[in-house]
Amino acid sequence: MKAVVHTGYHTFPSLKDIEKPTPGPGEVLLKVAGAGACHSDVAIFHEFDEGLNPQMDPEFVLGHETSGWVESVGEGVTGIEQGAAYLIYGPVGCGVCRACTRGQDTYCENASTMAYAGVGLGLNGGMAEYVVAPARNLVPLGDADPVDAAPLADAALTPYHAIKLALPHLNGGGKFALVIGLGGLGLIAVQILKALTGATIIATDMKEEAMAEAEKLGAVTVPGGEGQVERIREITGGQGVDAAFDFVGVGATVTTAMQSAGRQSRVTIVGIGNLSPYEWAFLTTPYEAELVNTYWGTVEELHEVVDMYKAGQITPQVTRYSLDDALEAYQALVDGTISGRAVIVPHGEV
Amino acid sequence: MKAVVHTGYHTFPSLKDIEKPTPGPGEVLLKVAGAGACHSDVAIFHEFDEGLNPQMDPEFVLGHETSGWVESVGEGVTGIEQGAAYLIYGPVGCGVCRACTRGQDTYCENASTMAYAGVGLGLNGGMAEYVVAPARNLVPLGDADPVDAAPLADAALTPYHAIKLALPHLNGGGKFALVIGLGGLGLIAVQILKALTGATIIATDMKEEAMAEAEKLGAVTVPGGEGQVERIREITGGQGVDAAFDFVGVGATVTTAMQSAGRQSRVTIVGIGNLSPYEWAFLTTPYEAELVNTYWGTVEELHEVVDMYKAGQITPQVTRYSLDDALEAYQALVDGTISGRAVIVPHGEV
Amino acid sequence: MKAVVHTGYHTFPSLKDIEKPTPGPGEVLLKVAGAGACHSDVAIFHEFDEGLNPQMDPEFVLGHETSGWVESVGEGVTGIEQGAAYLIYGPVGCGVCRACTRGQDTYCENASTMAYAGVGLGLNGGMAEYVVAPARNLVPLGDADPVDAAPLADAALTPYHAIKLALPHLNGGGKFALVIGLGGLGLIAVQILKALTGATIIATDMKEEAMAEAEKLGAVTVPGGEGQVERIREITGGQGVDAAFDFVGVGATVTTAMQSAGRQSRVTIVGIGNLSPYEWAFLTTPYEAELVNTYWGTVEELHEVVDMYKAGQITPQVTRYSLDDALEAYQALVDGTISGRAVIVPHGEV
Amino acid sequence: MKAVVHTGYHTFPSLKDIEKPTPGPGEVLLKVAGAGACHSDVAIFHEFDEGLNPQMDPEFVLGHETSGWVESVGEGVTGIEQGAAYLIYGPVGCGVCRACTRGQDTYCENASTMAYAGVGLGLNGGMAEYVVAPARNLVPLGDADPVDAAPLADAALTPYHAIKLALPHLNGGGKFALVIGLGGLGLIAVQILKALTGATIIATDMKEEAMAEAEKLGAVTVPGGEGQVERIREITGGQGVDAAFDFVGVGATVTTAMQSAGRQSRVTIVGIGNLSPYEWAFLTTPYEAELVNTYWGTVEELHEVVDMYKAGQITPQVTRYSLDDALEAYQALVDGTISGRAVIVPHGEV
Repeated sequence: MKAVVHTGYHTFPSLKDIEKPTPGPGEVLLKVAGAGACHSDVAIFHEFDEGLNPQMDPEFVLGHETSGWVESVGEGVTGIEQGAAYLIYGPVGCGVCRACTRGQDTYCENASTMAYAGVGLGLNGGMAEYVVAPARNLVPLGDADPVDAAPLADAALTPYHAIKLALPHLNGGGKFALVIGLGGLGLIAVQILKALTGATIIATDMKEEAMAEAEKLGAVTVPGGEGQVERIREITGGQGVDAAFDFVGVGATVTTAMQSAGRQSRVTIVGIGNLSPYEWAFLTTPYEAELVNTYWGTVEELHEVVDMYKAGQITPQVTRYSLDDALEAYQALVDGTISGRAVIVPHGEV
Repeated sequence: MKAVVHTGYHTFPSLKDIEKPTPGPGEVLLKVAGAGACHSDVAIFHEFDEGLNPQMDPEFVLGHETSGWVESVGEGVTGIEQGAAYLIYGPVGCGVCRACTRGQDTYCENASTMAYAGVGLGLNGGMAEYVVAPARNLVPLGDADPVDAAPLADAALTPYHAIKLALPHLNGGGKFALVIGLGGLGLIAVQILKALTGATIIATDMKEEAMAEAEKLGAVTVPGGEGQVERIREITGGQGVDAAFDFVGVGATVTTAMQSAGRQSRVTIVGIGNLSPYEWAFLTTPYEAELVNTYWGTVEELHEVVDMYKAGQITPQVTRYSLDDALEAYQALVDGTISGRAVIVPHGEV
Repeated sequence: MKAVVHTGYHTFPSLKDIEKPTPGPGEVLLKVAGAGACHSDVAIFHEFDEGLNPQMDPEFVLGHETSGWVESVGEGVTGIEQGAAYLIYGPVGCGVCRACTRGQDTYCENASTMAYAGVGLGLNGGMAEYVVAPARNLVPLGDADPVDAAPLADAALTPYHAIKLALPHLNGGGKFALVIGLGGLGLIAVQILKALTGATIIATDMKEEAMAEAEKLGAVTVPGGEGQVERIREITGGQGVDAAFDFVGVGATVTTAMQSAGRQSRVTIVGIGNLSPYEWAFLTTPYEAELVNTYWGTVEELHEVVDMYKAGQITPQVTRYSLDDALEAYQALVDGTISGRAVIVPHGEV
Repeated sequence: MKAVVHTGYHTFPSLKDIEKPTPGPGEVLLKVAGAGACHSDVAIFHEFDEGLNPQMDPEFVLGHETSGWVESVGEGVTGIEQGAAYLIYGPVGCGVCRACTRGQDTYCENASTMAYAGVGLGLNGGMAEYVVAPARNLVPLGDADPVDAAPLADAALTPYHAIKLALPHLNGGGKFALVIGLGGLGLIAVQILKALTGATIIATDMKEEAMAEAEKLGAVTVPGGEGQVERIREITGGQGVDAAFDFVGVGATVTTAMQSAGRQSRVTIVGIGNLSPYEWAFLTTPYEAELVNTYWGTVEELHEVVDMYKAGQITPQVTRYSLDDALEAYQALVDGTISGRAVIVPHGEV
């Protein structure tokens, strides 16, 4: 079968012909419906010097945002329906530590001893005609479109996890949320906040177009640059926001988030920008404003993300590519010329 | 000034001429904008044999849902704006116990030693031209219409408090909430749930008209009677609801709530119906479904309710009466012929 | 190998010679160190008319509280140490639903379609020389004594889960907890409360001896009968307890728990007594006192229970029996003549 | 009466004779039992260029940790017992904003418009024979020694508040807490953590003596300097601590706290050291480790602190001074020669 293969670091991926996999015990073989091309793939093949884990083999099929239809199941698998559509939870940990047993493989306590970090991250991923995944990583999609669903596995799960942990700060009337960075994740964050809270959502980005999109989704927008923080605080009646989410994560955006934050708020840094640090100091920090980073999400949360997708509360913006055109999608991602999330559709019409 | 006075138990209130009050230390005199007529007033003058507290004087002005404009302030009052509109938090406790210091006078630890339970509940209330209230019980209304705001003090604060405590069960995608009883409080509950959660809201009532209203507000409705519980569980995919709110509180509605509840849910009984008990048993209760009652709310929560009102997230249905017609409003309440919340407007046009 | 086999309902178990098992994919074979005999086993073979799940084969090895040393691992198992001691988390669900993926197999959404409920509950359990369990159900014991650890899997995990969910009510100074029923679970509950909270622990039982034991563990005791509730409330300064745990679960003990409860408390019913219902009514319930049942716990919680055991915070009282004497242990359990938890030790000296 | 008066910034306080106060409406006059001398007093008279609030009169009696016996009550005060001992909650806000109505005057929304920050902070404090305080700021001490209780109002309330907010991270078995800085607040923090959690408490300080004290209170100690973080992480089995509390708050201690933190932990900075910033960066921060500052506490929390004091769970180390020797106490504080908390005792034997 055809597959988009990561062959080495600092190396653009290749379209190769590889063997169709068979599911081992506890695993499921899926015919791929859609596989999202994610910015972190670009980071892996362009910026990384080595794998996420030391033991990781550099040769694997890319694609950690994958949906598909069940083709066959391995030994001991129960509760998975033949032919039905599922979304794959990407992270795969040791399976036996505390974090893994609660479905949070992202925080596997044995990650440093593993040869992979997930499906499409050391294990062969979804940029292929077929993919194998552990049964417990499958989330049923029911009748919902599986192609558009693919990006949910990361581009929606990541902001969902960040927001869910911040909900105690946004529960109730008169709350304010700030979203910095209105790319794929940021715009989905606006949709999630709109659906799950009664908060006024303040959104900011350098691109006019992204801000217009956020307004359509119900956000109030504030342009970057001079007076940005003052304008944000003014909207909140001077008290600052109750939760901020930074999908950029450069020094300047973390600073904007912290300066816009109110007392007893939560500032979550999701994006990993240029890595310039933020200078935290007691007296310039609002009392009890929590500064925190976050990473991806849990299996159970992906079930909840799919529930929101089915309910029409999350609509990813998707541009479809055939598997033959998959490398073009990655090139467009590298060039920054892509609009919405690129999803590779290996079977049928794009 | 004119005032609607409770003169004794099992006695219909009277319209009387009484002296205009003056604010004591820590108190504020307000010119009344609106005063809501509440079912619990009817309970007090029709069903009670004695006051809420043993020491309570039976003669007091009714009205525990009151808004008004600041006329003057007593000694030591700061932070209250002359002429501005405020909503009054009704409950007044001892002021020094744990519950009172956290703004939850409803659960005052010294309630049994007090001569009153609140403004309009032992203390003279808002069914008059003027009213006095403790400064800390005032919530600023800003530019929002103070007349329509009056009922918020109870008819919105009560469901808000019940819902806020249940939000941890409704946070996230794919959740279900059940509202039983679509009178004034129930319909506001639907609005609050719609604004603050992404849950599917299932609403039920015996009246077609009330259900139609709930549907307009975004709820899915299920009629009472045969098959009600089965239909509710079906909507939830068989798992049961995550939170149920019973604004009726008779044995049958508590049973419906508990039978509709899912695992790890919360069932809040708000209404105090005919007092027939519910038979709780281990094996007929879904695991970890919390059965709980609740009563009114806190000062801080009333601030949040007002925020929702200003944001257009709560719109009480109000029928206005002049102070001269106030007794008619109570009679209509007794007769069950009222539509929406009756609000007495002592000054100006109704 | 020898094993204690459940052969049918309303039938006392038999000691049989069966084949030594081999671990399948994702499974681990353990040489049994200890297997606890639990009251629920007696319920199964004495009181049940059919299995916990409809499809359950009535013939299986008993023992859902089991520890052992790893003998060999099945295909695909990582992170499990050969020869090391582990405790087995008993419940086994479908593995793919929300509850199972978060390590809460007890609340498996597909339980009704499964042929078993856990290791020793449909699947062959630990009352044998060897046992097989899923790798993710294993909790490492390190250097701690594995024999005394066996009962932790149920007799400690069950109160731990109940208490952990109630901790928000017990966090902070000046709190009160009530433990009703001081058998194996109740005495461990006292130890857990003592270690994890600063609460005053009030313990009650009909047996003097059990109360003396609870006092040694740091509890204040109140005898049952006349004046019991008054005495409990007096200890709390009249406000009632913040959390109550009922390990008996008959109508009378639920009533004691609810009458002893304070406002905003949590009353957890753990024991399943004679099933007589409790009559819940709005006006006799303290405001916001949550009435809730509960069942067993999660994999992650069992890790935490083992941490407490290693730290000396939980010490189960154990009476050891050889595998040849296992049926005597069950008979003593039936007769109520056992002291502490009976643990079957299949290998070596008892 | 005699009083220790702050007369201006950069000016050592004076012992003066001033008029005995009378309680206004809602206020209480107390005969002072004990008044703690706090490091922040030194900061105010040595380091500050102006008051905490712009309008603050520089002349006021010091002492924001005060206990006393009720001498008389002002108009409208209920629920306060004549002659009984109370501890004073120091912060005093506007009384009508959200923060004040929930008993958190420390976060008063109108603080910038107030002429004072609290009793002993703009308002006359407890370093005198008599003091006046708002009734709602009084916490009953019952039979407990009021002199030793005085420091609780700040030196215990501040760590209590920090710890209470971190308890969700410390709930359960196998948790680890880190306390940096074992002066007055740090040693009380160790006592609070010991009483309220089952966590292993790791304590660190530059002084041997302080560490010995912490060990007596049940902590494991790790000396500062080379290898400190490695040793702390080793104690936690490599995972890092679940909660860290830094009572020093210089760049180096914040760094130690963050490097010792585990995933999903909480790092609370309580001390305000030399104000050198900490460089926060995404990739050097454990996932979801919350970095947060904090300030003092709430009225309700002071009630809970007093409960712990009465239960013997908190024992402040106190050195008593007469009112005539009060300036010596402050001088010793300035010189760093004081041991334990200095408490001024205006009446009777020291």
